[in-house]
Amino acid sequence: MVIVGEKINIMSKIIGKAMKERDAKPIVELARQQKEAGATYLDLNIGPAAKDGPDMMEWLVQTIQAEVDIPLSLDTTNPKAMEAGLKVHKGQALVNSISGKKERIEQVLPLVKEYDAKVIGLTMTEAGVPRDANERAATAVDIITAVTEAGVSPENLFLDPLALPMAVAQQDTKEVFEAIKLFKELYDPPPKTIIGLSNISNNAPPRVKPLLDRVFLTMLMAYGLDGAILDPLDKDLMETAKTIKLFRNEVLYAHSYLDK
Amino acid sequence: MVIVGEKINIMSKIIGKAMKERDAKPIVELARQQKEAGATYLDLNIGPAAKDGPDMMEWLVQTIQAEVDIPLSLDTTNPKAMEAGLKVHKGQALVNSISGKKERIEQVLPLVKEYDAKVIGLTMTEAGVPRDANERAATAVDIITAVTEAGVSPENLFLDPLALPMAVAQQDTKEVFEAIKLFKELYDPPPKTIIGLSNISNNAPPRVKPLLDRVFLTMLMAYGLDGAILDPLDKDLMETAKTIKLFRNEVLYAHSYLDK
Repeated sequence: MVIVGEKINIMSKIIGKAMKERDAKPIVELARQQKEAGATYLDLNIGPAAKDGPDMMEWLVQTIQAEVDIPLSLDTTNPKAMEAGLKVHKGQALVNSISGKKERIEQVLPLVKEYDAKVIGLTMTEAGVPRDANERAATAVDIITAVTEAGVSPENLFLDPLALPMAVAQQDTKEVFEAIKLFKELYDPPPKTIIGLSNISNNAPPRVKPLLDRVFLTMLMAYGLDGAILDPLDKDLMETAKTIKLFRNEVLYAHSYLDK
Repeated sequence: MVIVGEKINIMSKIIGKAMKERDAKPIVELARQQKEAGATYLDLNIGPAAKDGPDMMEWLVQTIQAEVDIPLSLDTTNPKAMEAGLKVHKGQALVNSISGKKERIEQVLPLVKEYDAKVIGLTMTEAGVPRDANERAATAVDIITAVTEAGVSPENLFLDPLALPMAVAQQDTKEVFEAIKLFKELYDPPPKTIIGLSNISNNAPPRVKPLLDRVFLTMLMAYGLDGAILDPLDKDLMETAKTIKLFRNEVLYAHSYLDK
């Protein structure tokens, strides 16, 4: 199970400030905490980063990997910043993300190939968010075709069906489940799948949010999901993830499995 | 989603004593609490009840239904006690359970027919617990055949694949998931399915038990399970069930959905 820790995000007040001031300490600390909680990748979300992007991403990758041994998920809409991060990344990075949008594919896929990265393919297009499972599957086919034509192995691709918030699009959740099933039927061995989990609980009250997240994760994992971008410091969510692994036979049961 | 509250059980110290002494108060109170927590049936587990069975079941059914308006799940291996309960039950009772065992089918199915009850069909046989999904499906076919031949509508049947404890049979959980899928393919409209949930966490430590229960329930519900026999006073488990209903589009999302 791939777990991408989502906490290092320029939208966070403390982390955003630390990114801008090149203050390593809070960022490295948050990286360490997420790894210890069970993250297998750490997302570095610097947003559009129009001005300072390449320098910031390079600094982030080097600063974190100097202290914490973990691959990073480079999350920016700025292709120059993406490349600057890939250039200095140790090991196999994760590019977050491409989509069915032409410009994005043309700008970012060559980088995925050049730096032998993994990549998330978000099934949305110029037309916006997908309306149902079939639109998601159609975009998935376009992405897989583009990936293959760029000389990238489909094994390095994670398809993300794009979850919409329960509070505004309840009917869409069944389309996401169905999309995971459809993706798995596109080729053999089946493509890997991932979800940006917290979308589902956008706009939900604090009491409801963690419940939506963990029930959604568990149901998706029953449908064969391979990974999630989530908050690994949500202890209950991570205990849920560890328990899911038991039911998927990814770890052996022991009474002490939560402590591992 | 069918939720059978499991708390009224002769194995419980307080309730067992109350059953034997015909002390209505703690039993009616527990019935009321389970209904308020969201149970749609209440299980009355009096065990083999060799001596006093018919009288005890009759008293239980009448005592509870005089105070709480809810259908009951009559849970005893004593066919005479089963019949005594069915005779006085108001509305449509649930017979818990028949299995692939011949004697059980011959003794109990005629009662299901005579009293127009619903019935749980547990996919185990004289040979013991099922070894895999295929054995479960084969027993399910035998049960469905027996049910139909007895003149009982398959719509009144809930198939229970029989979960074994994670702590001793981890590999079997995937067989249970697979069994739910196989059951759903047996006929159209697909048979209803139910699970005795707490088996999964038998022998697990207290910290682990609720996690196993709620992750198992959630994954099974993703596979299409229709109901569960569980502890409705486990607040976290019931909040999970309410959240699952959102994802299955059985209730409309509202920020306040947990309070309903």
